Amino acid sequence: MMELAKRRGFIWPSFEIYGGVAGFYDFGPLGALLKNKIIQKWREYYVIKEGFFEIDSPNVMPEEVLKASGHVNHFVDAMVECQKCGAAFRVVDLSREQTGKDIEGMPKEEMNQFVKKHRVRCPNCSGELGKIFDFNAMFRTAIGPGSQRVGYLRPETAQGIFIDFKRLQRHARGKLPFGVVQIGKGYRNEISPRQGIIRLREFTMAEAEVFFDPDDSHHPKFSELAGEQLRLWLAGDQQHGKEKLTEVMAGEAVKQKLVCNELMAYYLALTKRFLLDLGIPGEAIRFREQTPGQRAHYSSETWDAEVSTERFGWVEVAGLAYRTDYDLSRHAQFSKEDLTIFSAGKNKKVICHVVEPSYGIDRPLYCMLEHSYVSEKKRKYLRLKKEFAPIEVGVFPLLNRDRMPEKAREVHEALRAGGLMAEYDDSGSIGRRYARADEIGTPYCVTIDHQTLEDDTVTIRNRDDTSQVRVGISGLANTIIDLIRGCS
Amino acid sequence: MMELAKRRGFIWPSFEIYGGVAGFYDFGPLGALLKNKIIQKWREYYVIKEGFFEIDSPNVMPEEVLKASGHVNHFVDAMVECQKCGAAFRVVDLSREQTGKDIEGMPKEEMNQFVKKHRVRCPNCSGELGKIFDFNAMFRTAIGPGSQRVGYLRPETAQGIFIDFKRLQRHARGKLPFGVVQIGKGYRNEISPRQGIIRLREFTMAEAEVFFDPDDSHHPKFSELAGEQLRLWLAGDQQHGKEKLTEVMAGEAVKQKLVCNELMAYYLALTKRFLLDLGIPGEAIRFREQTPGQRAHYSSETWDAEVSTERFGWVEVAGLAYRTDYDLSRHAQFSKEDLTIFSAGKNKKVICHVVEPSYGIDRPLYCMLEHSYVSEKKRKYLRLKKEFAPIEVGVFPLLNRDRMPEKAREVHEALRAGGLMAEYDDSGSIGRRYARADEIGTPYCVTIDHQTLEDDTVTIRNRDDTSQVRVGISGLANTIIDLIRGCS
Repeated sequence: MMELAKRRGFIWPSFEIYGGVAGFYDFGPLGALLKNKIIQKWREYYVIKEGFFEIDSPNVMPEEVLKASGHVNHFVDAMVECQKCGAAFRVVDLSREQTGKDIEGMPKEEMNQFVKKHRVRCPNCSGELGKIFDFNAMFRTAIGPGSQRVGYLRPETAQGIFIDFKRLQRHARGKLPFGVVQIGKGYRNEISPRQGIIRLREFTMAEAEVFFDPDDSHHPKFSELAGEQLRLWLAGDQQHGKEKLTEVMAGEAVKQKLVCNELMAYYLALTKRFLLDLGIPGEAIRFREQTPGQRAHYSSETWDAEVSTERFGWVEVAGLAYRTDYDLSRHAQFSKEDLTIFSAGKNKKVICHVVEPSYGIDRPLYCMLEHSYVSEKKRKYLRLKKEFAPIEVGVFPLLNRDRMPEKAREVHEALRAGGLMAEYDDSGSIGRRYARADEIGTPYCVTIDHQTLEDDTVTIRNRDDTSQVRVGISGLANTIIDLIRGCS
Repeated sequence: MMELAKRRGFIWPSFEIYGGVAGFYDFGPLGALLKNKIIQKWREYYVIKEGFFEIDSPNVMPEEVLKASGHVNHFVDAMVECQKCGAAFRVVDLSREQTGKDIEGMPKEEMNQFVKKHRVRCPNCSGELGKIFDFNAMFRTAIGPGSQRVGYLRPETAQGIFIDFKRLQRHARGKLPFGVVQIGKGYRNEISPRQGIIRLREFTMAEAEVFFDPDDSHHPKFSELAGEQLRLWLAGDQQHGKEKLTEVMAGEAVKQKLVCNELMAYYLALTKRFLLDLGIPGEAIRFREQTPGQRAHYSSETWDAEVSTERFGWVEVAGLAYRTDYDLSRHAQFSKEDLTIFSAGKNKKVICHVVEPSYGIDRPLYCMLEHSYVSEKKRKYLRLKKEFAPIEVGVFPLLNRDRMPEKAREVHEALRAGGLMAEYDDSGSIGRRYARADEIGTPYCVTIDHQTLEDDTVTIRNRDDTSQVRVGISGLANTIIDLIRGCS
C-alpha cells in the first residue's frame, strides 16, 4: 500500500533528492486532494454543525507564550545517546521496538532500570546506551536580527486560541459554552523518528477548544449523541494489564463517571461519528484513556481515539483532553490579564474550563488508505468512500480515433466545469485505464465509444462492482454528483 | 477600517496579551472565513480551471535545499543599526519613511551614500546609523537533537515543488506545460516590520510553478485571455522617473516584447481577472515590472501585481517571475539528480523553464476590506462581493417574544443545514442588528416577525440598497444562495 501511495502521488518522503529527512512527508497531488477533503469534512463537523469559530494564528510563537503554557518545561522527550557511536534516540521508541513494551509516562529512574534490565541497545552499532535525559521537542528559532527574542514553532495550535480568549469571548458575546477551532501545522522536533507518516516532525492538526463554565458542562445537543456506543479502554484496566474494552453508551459513560463530563462524552461520540464518516470501520476504533503518567502536563483526563492498522498497530488519531482551567489560568498569571468570565452559577468571576478534541489529519489519512486498500486476485483497488476519492471521475475515449478523443475532451471539460475532479486518460487499453483508476480509488469512469458519437450516451463504470450503465451525456456532471452522494 | 477589522474579528495583532510581536497577525473568526474563501477562489482558478496539481510540503526545510536554491546566500535584507541605541532597521524602510524614496535593489555602497546624503536617522533616538550589512531573512532552526542539522522555515513554498520535480513530471505523464501549486505559510524574518499586515514575518502564499519546454512557451488557452487589457508600468519608464502606464492587450504585450513570453502574459491576464473577481476595481490594479536591481536572484523578468490602497499606497499582492531553468538546474547540480526532460523541439534532453505566478493571501484580503469599506452619513458597511462575505445571512427575530425567537432559531438551523454561514442575532433593536451586519458585509438579513407566525413568510433585507422583500420560508436557503450567486 505504501508503495502504491508513493508511486501514485499520495505521499512522498520529503527532500528525497537530497537523501530525505526522517519525520517529514509531502502530500503529492492525490494526497493533497484527499487531505483537503478530510479538512473540509472536519470543518463541516466543527465549524458548520457545531458552529465553532475558526481562527488562524502564527506557527512561530515567542517564548513567553510557551513558558506560560508549560511547554518550555514539559514538552520534552526522554532521550538516550549511544555511548559508542553517539546516535540519539527516543527511549520509548527503542524500548517498544526491542522489547514490545510501552514505557511512555514511566518515571525517568524506572526507565533507566528498564533499559538496563532489558538490555536495550543502540540499533545502529549495538553499543551501550547512556543515561536518559530530557530533550525539549520544540523547534527553536530567533525572531528578528540577533538572537534576543527566542521563538519556537508551535507544538499545538491550541495556544494561539487560548491567548486570544478575551477577544474570542467578546466575539461570542458572553454565550457559554463556545468553541474555537484552528487547523494548521504543529511541530515536534522528534529525536529519531522511524515510523514514517505516523511520527512526523511537522504535521497538520485540527484542534477545537470548548470553553465552558466549570459549573455547567452540559452540551445543548447531548441527547443527539447520548445513545452512541463507545468502546473504552479504561486506564485502570491498562494498569492491571487487561486488554478488556468497556462498551458503553455516551450517556451511560457520564452517569457511571467513566468520562469526566457531558462535553467530553459528547465529543468522544462525535469523534467516533467523524471517523466512521471517513470510512474507518467501527471495529477498528477504540478510545484509550491515558494513565496519569502518560497525560500531558495540562490535562486531568485524556482519551486517545485509536484506529487499528496492520502496519503500525493501534494508532492515535485524535486526543480529547480535559484541560481544566490550566491554560487560561497560566496565561492570566503570566500576562497579568484578567481572563475570567462571570459565572451565573457561582455568581462570581471564574476562569473557564476547557475540553479539547484535537485531531491529527495525516494519521487518519494514512488509516483511510490502509483500510480502503483491497487486494483481490483479479484487481487491486482503493475502496475509499466515494466522496473522499481524490479523482472523482475518469474520462476515457475508447479509441484514439474517430473523433472519440475530441468528444472525450469535451466531456472532461464539462465535468470539471460542473465542479468534479475529472481526469482524462487515453493511454493504453481500457482495461489498463480502469486498473489505474481503481488503484487510486476513482469511483466512476466514463467511456466515450462509437455509440457516443451516434446518440450522445456514455458508459459509467462503477469501481466497486465493475458494473456498467449507459447514460446520456446531458446532465452527466449532476448524474455523477448524485451517484457520489447517494452511494458513498 | 482597521479599528473595525480588529473590533469585529477580522484581524488581530498576534500575542496581544504579551504585548504583541511586530510582523505577526491573527485572523479572527471573520478573517479566517474570508481567508478561506479567497483560498477557495484561488483553487478554483488554478486547480480546477487550469488543472494544476496541488501538493503540500513541509515548512521546515534542511539547509541543503536552500543552499541550492540560493536563499542562504541571496535571501538577505540590507540592514542598519543605530550607533547610539543599537536598534536595527531595514534600510529600505527607513529611507522610504524619511525621504519618500525607494532604494530597493540599490547597490550597498550607494545605499550608504544615500543614507549619509539624506541624513536618514534612527527613528527611535535620532542617533546616527552605522554601515549597511546583510542579514539573512530566513528563520533558522535545528532539526533533531543537538544542532548538527541546520534547518530553515521556507521563504517560499516553491522550493518544495522544485525538489519534487521528478515525481511531479512522472505524475504529469510527460505532458508539457504542466503546473503545480502549493498553498501555505511562507516566512521572512523581517528586521523591524512596521507596516502592519502588509509586512508580515509569517504569511500565507499561493504559488504556482508552470514548467515548460524552453522551446515552447505557448499556453493552450492563450486566445481566451489575449484580449485582456493590461496596465503595465515598464522598468524603463521607472528608471527614467516616469509614472506613465502602458495600456496594452496581453496578446499585444507578447508581440511587442514587453512581456517575455505567452505564458507570462497569460498569467498576468489571469491575475487581473482574479483580482477583479475578488472585488478589486480595475483602476486600482497595475503591473509593475521590477528593475534588474530589484529582481530576486532567480528571476530574469518579474512583474508585481499591485493594488492601490489609501493606507499603504501601491501594495504588491502577487509577483510573476520568469525563473528560467535556474531552480531546476541548481537542484540538479547540488543533488546530482537528473532533472532533465526530453524536448521534442530540440530533440534532446533539456531542463524545463518555469514561469511562476505567486500570490499573497493576506495582502489581497486587506485590499478587499479597504476597497469594500463604505462610510456614508447614515451608515457604514462593507460592500464585499456577496460570495466573499464571511457571514452570508443574518437571522433576526423581530421581538424576543411570541414564539419569534423559536421560529428564528429554526430558520437559522435550516439555513446552516443548507450550507449557508448564518448568524443568529436577537440583541438590541432591529436597526442596531442591521448596522452590525452591514459593518461586516453580511449581504442579506432575514427577519422573523408577526406575519411569519401566520403565513410562514419572512423579510429579506439587502445590504447594498437596504431594500426588503418578503418571501416564503420554504426553500429559503436556496433563495439566498441564488441571490448571492446572481447579484454578487
